Amino acid sequence: MNTPRTKPPPGGRRYRMTVAYDGGGFQGWQRQPDKPSVQGELEAALARLTGERPDVHSCGRTDAGVHAWGQVAHFDLARPWAAEALKKGLNALLPETVRVREVRRAASDFHARYDAAGKEYRYTIWNAEVEDPCRRQYALHVRSPLDIEAMRDAARRLVGTHDFAAFSANPNREIGSTVRTLYRLDVVKRGSVVTIRAAGDGFLYKMVRSLAGHLVRVGRGKVPVAETDTILSSRTRTARVETAAGKGLTLYRVHYRPGAWQRMGNETP
Amino acid sequence: MNTPRTKPPPGGRRYRMTVAYDGGGFQGWQRQPDKPSVQGELEAALARLTGERPDVHSCGRTDAGVHAWGQVAHFDLARPWAAEALKKGLNALLPETVRVREVRRAASDFHARYDAAGKEYRYTIWNAEVEDPCRRQYALHVRSPLDIEAMRDAARRLVGTHDFAAFSANPNREIGSTVRTLYRLDVVKRGSVVTIRAAGDGFLYKMVRSLAGHLVRVGRGKVPVAETDTILSSRTRTARVETAAGKGLTLYRVHYRPGAWQRMGNETP
Repeated sequence: MNTPRTKPPPGGRRYRMTVAYDGGGFQGWQRQPDKPSVQGELEAALARLTGERPDVHSCGRTDAGVHAWGQVAHFDLARPWAAEALKKGLNALLPETVRVREVRRAASDFHARYDAAGKEYRYTIWNAEVEDPCRRQYALHVRSPLDIEAMRDAARRLVGTHDFAAFSANPNREIGSTVRTLYRLDVVKRGSVVTIRAAGDGFLYKMVRSLAGHLVRVGRGKVPVAETDTILSSRTRTARVETAAGKGLTLYRVHYRPGAWQRMGNETP
Repeated sequence: MNTPRTKPPPGGRRYRMTVAYDGGGFQGWQRQPDKPSVQGELEAALARLTGERPDVHSCGRTDAGVHAWGQVAHFDLARPWAAEALKKGLNALLPETVRVREVRRAASDFHARYDAAGKEYRYTIWNAEVEDPCRRQYALHVRSPLDIEAMRDAARRLVGTHDFAAFSANPNREIGSTVRTLYRLDVVKRGSVVTIRAAGDGFLYKMVRSLAGHLVRVGRGKVPVAETDTILSSRTRTARVETAAGKGLTLYRVHYRPGAWQRMGNETP
């Protein structure tokens, strides 16, 4: 799973890019034979543009249907390109469901995944009796009125450093520790739109969707707020925690350590 | 064009409904042979549900690609139905791109178009260098930074009772007067999303999209603010006013006169 920290070939350069996508039409980030993927689209566009065939390494793989506003990925090119020309060229070749927001030259040992210090996700809920058809692909529809205060109370119990195994879709397949630090888990309501903002140093498999699924159940009164503590401390995934649909999730931002960030900025052509 | 005020058949009832739709996949509101339309979907669902074939009369026809959150329409049924059963039945039969938000019994002479006292539209712009792929179907993408204050200044010059012929896509085909009253024309900025809210007693053909197109040109510095007055008083449509893309437009709400509203409410079963 963990690929070694490689470097670009001699004379080559490493680039990082920030990518936004509508996950609705993709099998997820990861390249798959004969199935549309974001990685596949980016690699195909890079190959067409540069004549090289670089692998694109993202900060993390998003699942089928999950969207991104601030996915970060890196790749190497043997021949140097101006970052702005890469961005414009890629956007001209990519489908409109994938947009490159930024390309910058990175330090030769920058790694989109290993250098990531944290991520921020947003989970969007449309909370009204009837669905808004223009949001059907981007928000979970919850008919019954959500108790926002109960959701916030449950969210507060989850913030901090915990073993989040109960909120991993498959804790047995997690590599290494299932302890993570959740910096923030905010529930924001604006009209019928309820947004859950989750920021942490890392997330287990389907963790944000599990946290969102739990908060929705609490908000619907299906699970008492206090059970949040019991579930968390059980460190066991059960059917009591639901995984909310992928279409409501957006990878919003990736944070990098100051060092990594600096390295990225310093070498911008 | 103007159909007479009919009444339901003896023993029949009139209903009004509030409808939301994603206009992206439709040729517009109006029924057309062999082309998907919102009216066509609603009439087909009503026929399947009730066994009757009522015409559905909307407050106004929206163009291809234009969305709605609060379109209002009326129809008659010979056999009585509970309003809630109509709503549930229609939503079960309609595609997910069309949702009935409310059905209520209406007075037998209520007319969705003739009784409308005003409408509110929202025009959405994504103002950032790179498009947000998740908004590509619901907002106009404007790359260069918009001067919001200039747009607001121009908007203020348009509010009030004026001959809006210069902001009709086809003033010669307008029936009757081209004078309308614009109650509000607000420009709201929240992050990269700029929303133009237009409320008035009525709108000419493509008037909101023409107002939005003009404000965008002003915001981009392509047209000086003061030219707004010249254009308005010319009462002539020229290429100086652009029609903004339909995908950014949403029919948000229809207002009814207190009398009409009351009549609708009083007879709710």
